[in-house]
Amino acid sequence: MGSQTIFEQHESQVRSYSRDIPIVFRTASGHLLTDENGHSYIDFLAGAGALNYGHNNPALKQAVIEYMQADGVLHSLDLYTDAKRNFIREFQETILAPRGLDYRMQFTGPTGTNAIEAALKLARRVTSRTNVVSFTNSFHGMSLGALAVSSARRKRSGAGMPFVGVDRFPFDGYLGPSVDTLAYLDQALNDPGSGFDAPAAFIVETLQAEGGLNEARVEWLRGLQDLARRHNALLIVDEIQTGCGRTGPFFSFERADLYPDIVCLAKSIGGLGLPMALVLMRPEHDVWEPGQHNGTFRGNNLAFVAGAEALSQWRDASLEQSIESKGKLMCERLREIAQATGGAVRGVGMLQGVAWQDRSFARAVARRALAAGVIVETCGPWDEVLKIMPPLTIPEPALSDGLERVRCAALDEIVSTRLEVAV
Amino acid sequence: MGSQTIFEQHESQVRSYSRDIPIVFRTASGHLLTDENGHSYIDFLAGAGALNYGHNNPALKQAVIEYMQADGVLHSLDLYTDAKRNFIREFQETILAPRGLDYRMQFTGPTGTNAIEAALKLARRVTSRTNVVSFTNSFHGMSLGALAVSSARRKRSGAGMPFVGVDRFPFDGYLGPSVDTLAYLDQALNDPGSGFDAPAAFIVETLQAEGGLNEARVEWLRGLQDLARRHNALLIVDEIQTGCGRTGPFFSFERADLYPDIVCLAKSIGGLGLPMALVLMRPEHDVWEPGQHNGTFRGNNLAFVAGAEALSQWRDASLEQSIESKGKLMCERLREIAQATGGAVRGVGMLQGVAWQDRSFARAVARRALAAGVIVETCGPWDEVLKIMPPLTIPEPALSDGLERVRCAALDEIVSTRLEVAV
Amino acid sequence: MGSQTIFEQHESQVRSYSRDIPIVFRTASGHLLTDENGHSYIDFLAGAGALNYGHNNPALKQAVIEYMQADGVLHSLDLYTDAKRNFIREFQETILAPRGLDYRMQFTGPTGTNAIEAALKLARRVTSRTNVVSFTNSFHGMSLGALAVSSARRKRSGAGMPFVGVDRFPFDGYLGPSVDTLAYLDQALNDPGSGFDAPAAFIVETLQAEGGLNEARVEWLRGLQDLARRHNALLIVDEIQTGCGRTGPFFSFERADLYPDIVCLAKSIGGLGLPMALVLMRPEHDVWEPGQHNGTFRGNNLAFVAGAEALSQWRDASLEQSIESKGKLMCERLREIAQATGGAVRGVGMLQGVAWQDRSFARAVARRALAAGVIVETCGPWDEVLKIMPPLTIPEPALSDGLERVRCAALDEIVSTRLEVAV
Amino acid sequence: MGSQTIFEQHESQVRSYSRDIPIVFRTASGHLLTDENGHSYIDFLAGAGALNYGHNNPALKQAVIEYMQADGVLHSLDLYTDAKRNFIREFQETILAPRGLDYRMQFTGPTGTNAIEAALKLARRVTSRTNVVSFTNSFHGMSLGALAVSSARRKRSGAGMPFVGVDRFPFDGYLGPSVDTLAYLDQALNDPGSGFDAPAAFIVETLQAEGGLNEARVEWLRGLQDLARRHNALLIVDEIQTGCGRTGPFFSFERADLYPDIVCLAKSIGGLGLPMALVLMRPEHDVWEPGQHNGTFRGNNLAFVAGAEALSQWRDASLEQSIESKGKLMCERLREIAQATGGAVRGVGMLQGVAWQDRSFARAVARRALAAGVIVETCGPWDEVLKIMPPLTIPEPALSDGLERVRCAALDEIVSTRLEVAV
Repeated sequence: MGSQTIFEQHESQVRSYSRDIPIVFRTASGHLLTDENGHSYIDFLAGAGALNYGHNNPALKQAVIEYMQADGVLHSLDLYTDAKRNFIREFQETILAPRGLDYRMQFTGPTGTNAIEAALKLARRVTSRTNVVSFTNSFHGMSLGALAVSSARRKRSGAGMPFVGVDRFPFDGYLGPSVDTLAYLDQALNDPGSGFDAPAAFIVETLQAEGGLNEARVEWLRGLQDLARRHNALLIVDEIQTGCGRTGPFFSFERADLYPDIVCLAKSIGGLGLPMALVLMRPEHDVWEPGQHNGTFRGNNLAFVAGAEALSQWRDASLEQSIESKGKLMCERLREIAQATGGAVRGVGMLQGVAWQDRSFARAVARRALAAGVIVETCGPWDEVLKIMPPLTIPEPALSDGLERVRCAALDEIVSTRLEVAV
Repeated sequence: MGSQTIFEQHESQVRSYSRDIPIVFRTASGHLLTDENGHSYIDFLAGAGALNYGHNNPALKQAVIEYMQADGVLHSLDLYTDAKRNFIREFQETILAPRGLDYRMQFTGPTGTNAIEAALKLARRVTSRTNVVSFTNSFHGMSLGALAVSSARRKRSGAGMPFVGVDRFPFDGYLGPSVDTLAYLDQALNDPGSGFDAPAAFIVETLQAEGGLNEARVEWLRGLQDLARRHNALLIVDEIQTGCGRTGPFFSFERADLYPDIVCLAKSIGGLGLPMALVLMRPEHDVWEPGQHNGTFRGNNLAFVAGAEALSQWRDASLEQSIESKGKLMCERLREIAQATGGAVRGVGMLQGVAWQDRSFARAVARRALAAGVIVETCGPWDEVLKIMPPLTIPEPALSDGLERVRCAALDEIVSTRLEVAV
Repeated sequence: MGSQTIFEQHESQVRSYSRDIPIVFRTASGHLLTDENGHSYIDFLAGAGALNYGHNNPALKQAVIEYMQADGVLHSLDLYTDAKRNFIREFQETILAPRGLDYRMQFTGPTGTNAIEAALKLARRVTSRTNVVSFTNSFHGMSLGALAVSSARRKRSGAGMPFVGVDRFPFDGYLGPSVDTLAYLDQALNDPGSGFDAPAAFIVETLQAEGGLNEARVEWLRGLQDLARRHNALLIVDEIQTGCGRTGPFFSFERADLYPDIVCLAKSIGGLGLPMALVLMRPEHDVWEPGQHNGTFRGNNLAFVAGAEALSQWRDASLEQSIESKGKLMCERLREIAQATGGAVRGVGMLQGVAWQDRSFARAVARRALAAGVIVETCGPWDEVLKIMPPLTIPEPALSDGLERVRCAALDEIVSTRLEVAV
Repeated sequence: MGSQTIFEQHESQVRSYSRDIPIVFRTASGHLLTDENGHSYIDFLAGAGALNYGHNNPALKQAVIEYMQADGVLHSLDLYTDAKRNFIREFQETILAPRGLDYRMQFTGPTGTNAIEAALKLARRVTSRTNVVSFTNSFHGMSLGALAVSSARRKRSGAGMPFVGVDRFPFDGYLGPSVDTLAYLDQALNDPGSGFDAPAAFIVETLQAEGGLNEARVEWLRGLQDLARRHNALLIVDEIQTGCGRTGPFFSFERADLYPDIVCLAKSIGGLGLPMALVLMRPEHDVWEPGQHNGTFRGNNLAFVAGAEALSQWRDASLEQSIESKGKLMCERLREIAQATGGAVRGVGMLQGVAWQDRSFARAVARRALAAGVIVETCGPWDEVLKIMPPLTIPEPALSDGLERVRCAALDEIVSTRLEVAV
């Protein structure tokens, strides 16, 4: 049977990435994915943010293999294991304590959407309110509760039923530079005639990754936190894609010096791309009854082992500095591309991209980049944004090489389109 | 810091198993869990059904280690990998083809609840209907959509909001032996004055695991399938806990010779307890648009590797025969316990237990069993059922040993209680 | 323009009664409706229960005309008027006090469904719970809240969206004589694994009028009240069609000696068929904030005037005795019809009818009765029940005459059908 | 028993108008309400808009009395009567035909909220969509469906449960003069990432009466209609308070030359304040099945008789001209009051008022006006707007007199407050 036939015959047509990238991969290392014919690709997709530390990061992988060879417990529900204890300790000591944070940790089912579900439940329990404010172009997950607070029409349409308990408001900048969307939100919550009530929570990404690399300004984020406090609502920050150093600091909310009530982590928290998700909550919000939210795979110890090893890389400032440095490089190179093609650079740290007015342009560039050996995806409501998200560990030369290939792809697309038009 | 202090200080109070089993585990092998002091326990919990093939099953573990050592792709979203292809091929050839089944496979986020969410969405899309019929004492998951069709009050209360789109009906036997609950369901759906409409789907477990080991009779299950067909509704069978051989055959619905429209698998499908979930759908129901349901961790290749290796154990009949044989042993031994203590045996295959009228008895026995070196949990709406669920691979002597310790625990509890009463 | 053309051209196709009874009526008196050609019809429909005191009841009509001639306030929102004061006094003195009832009175928008909406809101406020238990074959109204707790599929389908906050259970007798539906309800509420929670309220008709004249037994009703008390839920009795003497006593629940938490009245409470609705609540449940439920027409003073005059007829026992006597007559005559045609008599007091297995039979009889000068409607999920509901004030000879015409209509239908079959 | 004791003892505390106006009224004529002690009050409340033609309008009253004296059918469900035919004919000939409108007419239960419920159902049926867009500070009714699309927090809180199927957007001007709220709405519906879907309908008041006399600009209203057309959504105009000439023309939407898909009428459509409600729909939207939305009191023939007589007053332009003239008078006089007190005039036609920054001022003025013999209410989210809504038939001298008394009340309040502050 042909190399891809088995997928086409037996896998549901729900599959998506594999349609744009119809390649069968076999091995991976660092920033490179290699297919079954031995061709390697620079990975600017990084597991949609789950591979911040690179494919098969040697230190992480070695820790996992050794753990397995020693017959370490692999699956433990929410039983105590030493692997879990190590992870908690590393997270407390390396991440929380230095930042003055005192969160309790909840290990949910190991997907981002499970963490969001837990966060929403908890906020509703803490406040005895139902509605949660979410924002335009947000994405929080695919299970019913998380999907309700997500914005992408195509994804929401999958639910086949109306959603309950969500109030949608415009994100920072959504109504253009002259409209303060936070003022609208404030007015709506203060006005007993607005139709909106004090919510259980506000759920927000500081940088909307799926939604098009839309960055909330620091003053908007801080204003949102103030608003939440005034209305006794919880601030939930979804750090699933932006956390674990993606924007520079470990948490993207550090940029605005926030102290969210609840933080959701997943994707790279498991270090090697192994499934794991984590909800952080301020201790006073830890009102769960035992077992009120659980899940079979909330004790994926391989992820604890790899994740703890990954966290240890945050013991000093080198990783953050390296992200900052590479983020600047990305910004410069993307500006060149944007200027040459009439696009606009968006994003923060190592989660940046270029948006174009022509809604088909970004996808065309991504196709050409793939042909040139670079895997890169698009985002935004119209897929109009090219999204560059390499492993944080990518060496600068490789990053530079990949960006150059993207630049050529963009220029080729411009030339090719112009020629077509000219002819 | 003391051994468990770090959990108590930093982990959310939502934790549950670790409250009844306050032990820090370090290694595990086969049917044994070993704590950090070197004490070993017979595991009759088996990761709540995720460890059918035992802890660190050597063949599975070896395959995973070799895959990692060769820098196999660990995380791949829904990109094609050879590990995934192997899994699909093994599943098609070893499981589906011999049973005459032609399901399409959807890899969802790697938790059971994510699979259920996908199944519910799909059923609603296929039928353009909203309501799903679920049954008393069902459990399908903790995310909002799955929780809506679950029955446990404590768990549902976590949502903090009313559910939409579910009609609840009594499971087989719920109203006693003299009432045919299927007749009620049939009448309700045929009667335009009942208040119930034709549903999008019926979601059912053939043996309710969390709900108290309630077994649906074959004729009830077949009648339910007929009912679904008559009302153009889909039959979703939740095989998350009962599948992968737990009740004997690979799918528990084989007992009733069903052909469900949608089947949900998770827990042991990943072989080693590694997170993975799978939705099977009849090809005509594969109406997904690309990406309409996705998830970052739907490509957990370690689970594909371990899972494929596990599936290969189904190439001949030996595993199923062994389950049958051990299931009989369990039944005999549990009958003795039940007779001696006034309980009743429930369950099928290697998912059996004893229910008692005294709602605190099962928990007391579980506590005593733990002290005697056996990990065993309770289930049912009042935790009134002791649930014995060893790895399917447990050797008969070890199974026998564990059951004997449970028997002693039960007798001790009887004696102790009587003495108290007598004094 | 022809007599009915204007309706057909300009009125929405939602119209229903006028399809089966395509006659333009001009005047009405007592139990007679007269069309524009001077033909009179015995009215066994009685405004669907709004005309218990007959068309243009002389005493009531005179009071209304005099009130108007004196420029009495017609429309008063919820301002105080002496007409309203008279109504309240008459209701307290004539209806409530003699029955030992101490209800507070809420005048809602003047339709039954508005009263139900108020009752549901109040129950949810009192209990801080969301779900309301309603029963198979119930009907409570057409606005969204009332429709949610109603059962007829055709009517519910009009909503175009799923309902929230209702749990449906089988009414008394729904599962046949051998199944105690109350036991199922009790079990479902006591069992934390049933999927059902303690509800805000139970809403019930003691005799389901639209649903097919299904009578709840006294012990079932009393058991339901006990159940409500045990679960701290409210008992709402919908007396919209069954109240105002329709079944004999003023309230139909007197039959079971209930003391409901909330009672809804409408239809005949306005005496002459003038719009009015009333919610009665036990004083401890009167937790409304001012204006929290209101409506422009809740002060329809003509209805207060006519309604107070109507209530005065309850100062002695004569009306109730007369209903009892005519109810017996109805029962006897309907039994003859039922026996002759293979039907079954259903109902209580002056709300009785005959049900047939052949689902088209009742409608055929109604058509023949109309041709014979009797207006009569059908009810039940399949319109399989002929529903006889004359004004309570109909003289016995007229009642007898009308029933004889119905009997002939039924026999004619039998004969005609048989002949068709024979030929 | 004292004059008001009976209300206080036996009526629910939900009563509202009677709290601010604790007077027992007996008679009424034109613009005057007279209490049981013979004191008369100028009525600037006009039954919250139900008494556009004045109390006991002689021509209307006479028609009703004669109809009753002739034993006209009072209550007819949706059966045909000549009174209903006359109403339909008068509405078609006098109102619709001259305006080039071809609406079908649906007689719903006789309250505004019932009409709104029907409109929402119909829009959902026509479009097979669920969500309806409503606006800040809207008010559409108190039953669950209508309440869901209403904005006042106090009223919505009565529901005791979350609402489904509504998207709330800012009304014209809500975000200040510099923000085009329609542009936000347009963007939100065009953007597949906004979180909002194409709605079933937009429901709007052209002048928000309860919400504070907020007037939508003509271009906004026309833009909204265009938006609805572009998204294949229905435009529902709620004319319950603004229709029947209240703003000048019969329909308030004539100001913007709209052709709504659905129009809801109630309040003054019954002429004398008798309960009646009416839904107008474009013929292509009349997709009801027979009886799919009904109600016992949808055939209130006294309202048909009075309403038809009232409609006849629209046969020539004199009423509209008179409203225009008196509206100008109101505007001038209210401007004086506003200028003297630091308020701002709002409203259109004979539905105007003054808004003050000081949220307690309007209520204080209303109290003083009552003492001076004028009944006037407040509106707006904070009750910060004094709302002047006399019968349309009020003679200019009486209107002038009443406005003068309001002016004095406002000045007195200013003086009194200043003195207090000074002291």
